[in-house]
Amino acid sequence: MFFKVDKKQLLTKLNVVSRAISNYSPLPAFSGIKFDVNENEICLMASDSDISIKNYISKRDECFLEIEQTGSIVIEAKYILDIVRKMDTEVISIEVADGVNVKIYDETSEFNIIGIYANEYPMIDFTKGEDFFTISTMKLKSVLNQTLFATSDKDNRPYLNGINVHIHDGHVDCTATDSYRLAKTSFDVDSTIDYNIIIPSKSLNELLKSLDDDQEIKVHVSNKKVQFVFEDTLIQTRLIEGSFPDTNKLIPEQFQYELKVETRDILSAIDRMSFIKNDGINIIKLDLNENESILSTKSQDIGSATEILKTASFNGESLAISFNGRYVFEAIRAIHADTITFKFSGEMKPFIIQSEENEEVLQLVLPVRTYL
Amino acid sequence: MFFKVDKKQLLTKLNVVSRAISNYSPLPAFSGIKFDVNENEICLMASDSDISIKNYISKRDECFLEIEQTGSIVIEAKYILDIVRKMDTEVISIEVADGVNVKIYDETSEFNIIGIYANEYPMIDFTKGEDFFTISTMKLKSVLNQTLFATSDKDNRPYLNGINVHIHDGHVDCTATDSYRLAKTSFDVDSTIDYNIIIPSKSLNELLKSLDDDQEIKVHVSNKKVQFVFEDTLIQTRLIEGSFPDTNKLIPEQFQYELKVETRDILSAIDRMSFIKNDGINIIKLDLNENESILSTKSQDIGSATEILKTASFNGESLAISFNGRYVFEAIRAIHADTITFKFSGEMKPFIIQSEENEEVLQLVLPVRTYL
Repeated sequence: MFFKVDKKQLLTKLNVVSRAISNYSPLPAFSGIKFDVNENEICLMASDSDISIKNYISKRDECFLEIEQTGSIVIEAKYILDIVRKMDTEVISIEVADGVNVKIYDETSEFNIIGIYANEYPMIDFTKGEDFFTISTMKLKSVLNQTLFATSDKDNRPYLNGINVHIHDGHVDCTATDSYRLAKTSFDVDSTIDYNIIIPSKSLNELLKSLDDDQEIKVHVSNKKVQFVFEDTLIQTRLIEGSFPDTNKLIPEQFQYELKVETRDILSAIDRMSFIKNDGINIIKLDLNENESILSTKSQDIGSATEILKTASFNGESLAISFNGRYVFEAIRAIHADTITFKFSGEMKPFIIQSEENEEVLQLVLPVRTYL
Repeated sequence: MFFKVDKKQLLTKLNVVSRAISNYSPLPAFSGIKFDVNENEICLMASDSDISIKNYISKRDECFLEIEQTGSIVIEAKYILDIVRKMDTEVISIEVADGVNVKIYDETSEFNIIGIYANEYPMIDFTKGEDFFTISTMKLKSVLNQTLFATSDKDNRPYLNGINVHIHDGHVDCTATDSYRLAKTSFDVDSTIDYNIIIPSKSLNELLKSLDDDQEIKVHVSNKKVQFVFEDTLIQTRLIEGSFPDTNKLIPEQFQYELKVETRDILSAIDRMSFIKNDGINIIKLDLNENESILSTKSQDIGSATEILKTASFNGESLAISFNGRYVFEAIRAIHADTITFKFSGEMKPFIIQSEENEEVLQLVLPVRTYL
């Protein structure tokens, strides 16, 4: 294996595939990036067995590439990334001698790194399923930002460690919940496929970091994996087994109380109160009546805080309801609108947060019982 | 105690004094900031017993201050900083009731924090010594940047955990060493005082972060403490007891070899090789002769690297010398010049790094024995 390639191009492609690499990989080979070089292109690949990413540097690209000799090798990701990033040159040469000695060089710098034989790298099946829909990176990013934070990070119910994606009748519902709060968003697609899957949040977090420019993404879906294909990059992830709970029945439909408030007003108020914690949790009480809307919180060790929501307008009889401040903060932030609306149906009933600017997003939070 | 004050001014002053607070303070009161309010000004103070900082918000300042009632209180630093930083107002009111209940508020936000009685805060002697010299913040910053990194962080020789400041005959020599490398810089002062003291590097690191605009600093020196006074801020630190070794005899004066090289060239070369470590240390060999200057490094686990210094010019017979890459990297960076000169007197003799652009700074590094 021997090629010369544009440094910037190589670095960009390495940065993308390296997102698949986990520090806690089961296999030593998974700490490396696999190079497969044929006569026309270099294929780069990395994986932690849950998420796998591959992309290409091709002669068709508008950057320098000279392939002198084909071949395959696996190179420790942290070394190759560090070297390529710091090399002060336009063209980098990479050459493998004696099967496993990797030489990376330009005119003044030379690095000799011990690689891993390509046949020690597990076979990863990148075959694309037939079923797919398309979505813009911009839309995909906003869907992920609206839901990912609400997934569970506990081990006891694996099916809550991901986003439930239900595709049916040209419609996609994405739902995430950790059983204390729920985030849901929907969008239409130009496809008639029918799937109900759970995609691991860890993989989606890495996907989110890999989405850059605004372009179309093909999302290939099967019952085993989902693949995100854009430009010459393919990111695939395993799915979480198990069935996602039916959350529709949790979402109330009748509300007796409605609070409208500017996002900036309530977010900054919750943020200011967030340091007042009991056992690590910031519980906030919301007191609502015709005249004023007041947030308050208290802790025996630290003290108390009160905030008047200047921009609030409330409809309904007096109501006092308590909640985890962080849950409501994250829910409001995820809606990404200037004004939001809380809809309540009772002090111990789940309440929802929505915005007229962004009606497809629904955030639901369970109140907590307190004696503040 | 009750006053109303400009939010930005309060935040700026709190940020400065809070630098004295350590997470590992011996006394609970030291996790707080002490407020002393008299009819004309607020004095803020914080300490970890090694370093103490105080400053003032005065009616003379061009910002809003209304003092309604004098008094003193200590407020937990992390709470008061968090609250003041996040409050969205121009004027903040702070009021103490029942001796220890602190109310911080504006028109819509109110925080009630439990304070600490001012009499539980240790007396700190801020009396200024008579002896002083003046230095600009710009000069003081550059002196600290040239030397601080070379102090020792080990516990076995406390007198190496600081910078030795020797003031004599209108001249100040600053020396730092961890016994493997040494950094020294000198400057003239308009003062005839005579002191030979060791200032803890931990205090000087905090001082460095507190130095902002270019202004004159009065440095008050005694045999117990040193005080840095600028504007209405006073930063004082205890000294390290013990006598600093006479390092002058370590610095060679005769050199048989001289290497001149562009800083950018050698720093980027060392940086690229820095990941190749043996037992956590990156040892670099420098091979010098009339025709070329080459850096190389090797590790059985990782591999090897070679760098040709394109901008090098060497005077002397052939020489090979090995050193800790990080020590030479930090020494060169501290000189802050475009071109630097290495002066050698043998492969196992300490060598020095200097620059014609910045002759008052001297960096010395001990070579290491290797079998690369």
